[in-house]
Amino acid sequence: MKVIVDLCVVPVGTGVSLSPYVAACERVLAEKGLSFTLHANGTNIEGAWDEVFTAIRQCHEVLHAMGVARVFSTLKVGTRSDRDQSMGDKIRSVEQRLSGLRP
Amino acid sequence: MKVIVDLCVVPVGTGVSLSPYVAACERVLAEKGLSFTLHANGTNIEGAWDEVFTAIRQCHEVLHAMGVARVFSTLKVGTRSDRDQSMGDKIRSVEQRLSGLRP
Amino acid sequence: MKVIVDLCVVPVGTGVSLSPYVAACERVLAEKGLSFTLHANGTNIEGAWDEVFTAIRQCHEVLHAMGVARVFSTLKVGTRSDRDQSMGDKIRSVEQRLSGLRP
Amino acid sequence: MKVIVDLCVVPVGTGVSLSPYVAACERVLAEKGLSFTLHANGTNIEGAWDEVFTAIRQCHEVLHAMGVARVFSTLKVGTRSDRDQSMGDKIRSVEQRLSGLRP
Repeated sequence: MKVIVDLCVVPVGTGVSLSPYVAACERVLAEKGLSFTLHANGTNIEGAWDEVFTAIRQCHEVLHAMGVARVFSTLKVGTRSDRDQSMGDKIRSVEQRLSGLRP
Repeated sequence: MKVIVDLCVVPVGTGVSLSPYVAACERVLAEKGLSFTLHANGTNIEGAWDEVFTAIRQCHEVLHAMGVARVFSTLKVGTRSDRDQSMGDKIRSVEQRLSGLRP
Repeated sequence: MKVIVDLCVVPVGTGVSLSPYVAACERVLAEKGLSFTLHANGTNIEGAWDEVFTAIRQCHEVLHAMGVARVFSTLKVGTRSDRDQSMGDKIRSVEQRLSGLRP
Repeated sequence: MKVIVDLCVVPVGTGVSLSPYVAACERVLAEKGLSFTLHANGTNIEGAWDEVFTAIRQCHEVLHAMGVARVFSTLKVGTRSDRDQSMGDKIRSVEQRLSGLRP
């Protein structure tokens, strides 16, 4: 089962700069060979369910290994059984409506 | 690694009544023997990471098997490396502060 | 417009104990006279849209006033135009299906 | 108080195509003159707290006016009291670490 996820990881009990921790998660996703895109409030990831969630568990583990005592993440998880849809398809679908290319 | 999750599953492309789908997910969690509590905006679950996420994948699969073409879920995921904390501990910790039992 | 919200506030750049901050938010909600219920991963709130979101802004303000430099919160927001539904109704609706009282 | 929000609106009780509803929300944000960016799992918005949340209420209202009986949205909400940070700053901060430009 393919999944599209938005992952936002917040380390608790560290300083206010979160970018070292977000960067560490991006490296996990890259090493796993997953398709992902960073945005201002998280990272969108697409792939097979088990591979994506194994990577997310590893993000939590890597942050704990960096000394973070408490990791809190927010996820949005989408699956479809009717058709295959990529992250790019989702964006294009909205943009075409805004540009009047689709009714 | 132990995890505490808040799971909120929204089937897309069905009617406005979501309770049959939420009930189907509760049955999955019960069959897996996980500890969980239903609340007005989701279900709190605690357990080992892999068992919890296997159950969540099965919730998506069960909804697709019920004819839902698109399943969207929102998750909050918390892990700690400093100490073991249950869902009940989290609530008691806040309630003790409100009642003045803790400074 | 009535709204049912799940609010989960995470202060960033403080220690690992979040309960003083959650308790401060509960006090804001109580002072506003809103109906709310604490659960293991957040607080469910119901009320008029503007009153609920004014209270949530005040939660962020109170945490900053307590010295938290960065406040991150996750919200689930539900509105209906077809009928009035309370937080208790939502839970009962699922429980009735699980107990077999509704088909 | 400035806020950076990730808004993901899911209409319940409609078909599986969500893009007409997401496009309607984008038009609300554009009319309000807010700074926003569409991504694969939502829309990032930055602006003054009250303006952003007035726009989000209007998104719910517009969807109900389009005939959607039930609207469910997920929000991530970030505020800072220590410094001004834009959505672009957040992304650059992570990218600089990944490229080795920051330690």
